[in-house]
Amino acid sequence: MTKSALVLFSGGQDSTICLAYALERYARVETLAFDYNQRHKVELDCRLEILKHIPTQNREWGERLGDDHILPLPALAEIGGTSLIGAGEIKMQENGLPSSFVPGRNLLFLTYGAALAYRRGLDVLVGGMCETDYSGYPDCRRTTLDALTNAINLGMESAITIDTPLMQQTKAQSWALANEIGGAALVSLIIEHSHTCYEGERNHRHIWGYGCGTCPACKLRAQGYQEWTAA
Amino acid sequence: MTKSALVLFSGGQDSTICLAYALERYARVETLAFDYNQRHKVELDCRLEILKHIPTQNREWGERLGDDHILPLPALAEIGGTSLIGAGEIKMQENGLPSSFVPGRNLLFLTYGAALAYRRGLDVLVGGMCETDYSGYPDCRRTTLDALTNAINLGMESAITIDTPLMQQTKAQSWALANEIGGAALVSLIIEHSHTCYEGERNHRHIWGYGCGTCPACKLRAQGYQEWTAA
Repeated sequence: MTKSALVLFSGGQDSTICLAYALERYARVETLAFDYNQRHKVELDCRLEILKHIPTQNREWGERLGDDHILPLPALAEIGGTSLIGAGEIKMQENGLPSSFVPGRNLLFLTYGAALAYRRGLDVLVGGMCETDYSGYPDCRRTTLDALTNAINLGMESAITIDTPLMQQTKAQSWALANEIGGAALVSLIIEHSHTCYEGERNHRHIWGYGCGTCPACKLRAQGYQEWTAA
Repeated sequence: MTKSALVLFSGGQDSTICLAYALERYARVETLAFDYNQRHKVELDCRLEILKHIPTQNREWGERLGDDHILPLPALAEIGGTSLIGAGEIKMQENGLPSSFVPGRNLLFLTYGAALAYRRGLDVLVGGMCETDYSGYPDCRRTTLDALTNAINLGMESAITIDTPLMQQTKAQSWALANEIGGAALVSLIIEHSHTCYEGERNHRHIWGYGCGTCPACKLRAQGYQEWTAA
C-alpha cells in the first residue's frame, strides 16, 4: 500500500461502499462531497455520521482516513435554472431527465476532485459511477471516464487515475461487495447511515435502510437488497 | 452562418477579441463569465461595459449578441486554500505558480461552458486560451483542449467544439486581429474597457489601456501593443 486516494463520498450507499473499498486498498484516504442543493443536505449530514463511525468499524481504516472536504457548487443550480433551447431541450426530454438536469455533471465532480487530489498529493480518484444502474447518464460510463482521465492529466501534467469499483456491479452485487469488504458491521453502517432517497426521507425505516420507499432510488436500493439476501 | 457560440468572456483583452471574432462568425452568441474571487470583480464590471458597447460598434453584432451568464465558483477559492501536500507542492513551486493555484482551472471553465452550451442549444465554445503566452498552463494547450472536447462529448452525448482563435497568436498579433475584425473602434473599445491588470488597477491610463503597468499581465499587454504599433 503506497498509493493514496480521494473518494467522491456523497453519503449514499454506493459511495459508502467506495469509501470502505478505498480504506482497504489505499494507504491514505481523503473524502470529498459537493454541496449543490437543499435536497442533498440530508446526505451531507449522513456522510458525517458515516465518517464518525469508520474508526469503530476497523482501527486501520480509522488510521488511514484523512481530511474531509465539502465544496460549494452553486453554479450547478444556476445552470439548471437556465432556459432550455433547441437540441438540448429535445434530447433531455427523450431521456426522461428533469428540466433542471445539468449535462456532464460527473465531469465537473471528477475535475474538481482531480484539482483537489493534485493539491493534496493524492494519486487516485475513487467514485461510485455505475454503468449498470445509470445507463441514462453518459458521464458515468467507463469510456467517458477514460477520456476525462486523459484530459485531466494533460491539463494538470499529472498521473491521476479514476478507480470505479462499482462500474459493472448490480445493486445486489454492491451489497455483496460491502459484506465482503466489511462484513455485517459495514452492511449495518450502510443500512443505518447511508442515504439514497431522492425525497430526503429519513423517518421511515425499512430492512434496507431509511427512505420514502417509492422513489426510483429507494426502489433500486430495496430491490438490490432483496436480491442479495435471497441469493 | 448557421452555428451559434458561447464565448468565455471575462472582460480581458483576449476574451474581448474572442467576443468580436465570434460575433463576426456565429449567428447567435451568448457570453459566460465566472465569479471566483474579489480581484476579478473589476473585470466583471468591465465586461458589462463592453457588452453595452457592442451594438454601437456594429449593428449586426448587436443583433447576434444574446444572453450573458455569470456563474459563481466559490469552490475554486476553497481548493486554492487547501494545504499543499507532496508532489503537488513541489511541482507548483518549480512552475513559479502561486500557492493558491488551482490546477486544471480551464478544464473546469470549459466543462461548465459545455454544460451551459448544451442547455442553451449552442454549438461552439470560444475561448482565448493561448499557447504562446501561457506556456506554463498545460490546461491552455490545444492538445489538452482536444482531449477535453472528446471527454465532454462522450459525457454529454453532444458535438460541441472548442474554438480558440488566439491559440497561436502573440499579443502583438492579437491586437492586429482586433484591428482586422473591428478596426479602430474595436481597438479603442479594448483600450478603454477591457481589463487585464492582476492588481485590479483602473486609475492609471496608458496608451494601451488601464492598469498598474508593472504586473506581468500589464507588461505583456503593453509590450504587445508597442510591438503591434511599431510593426
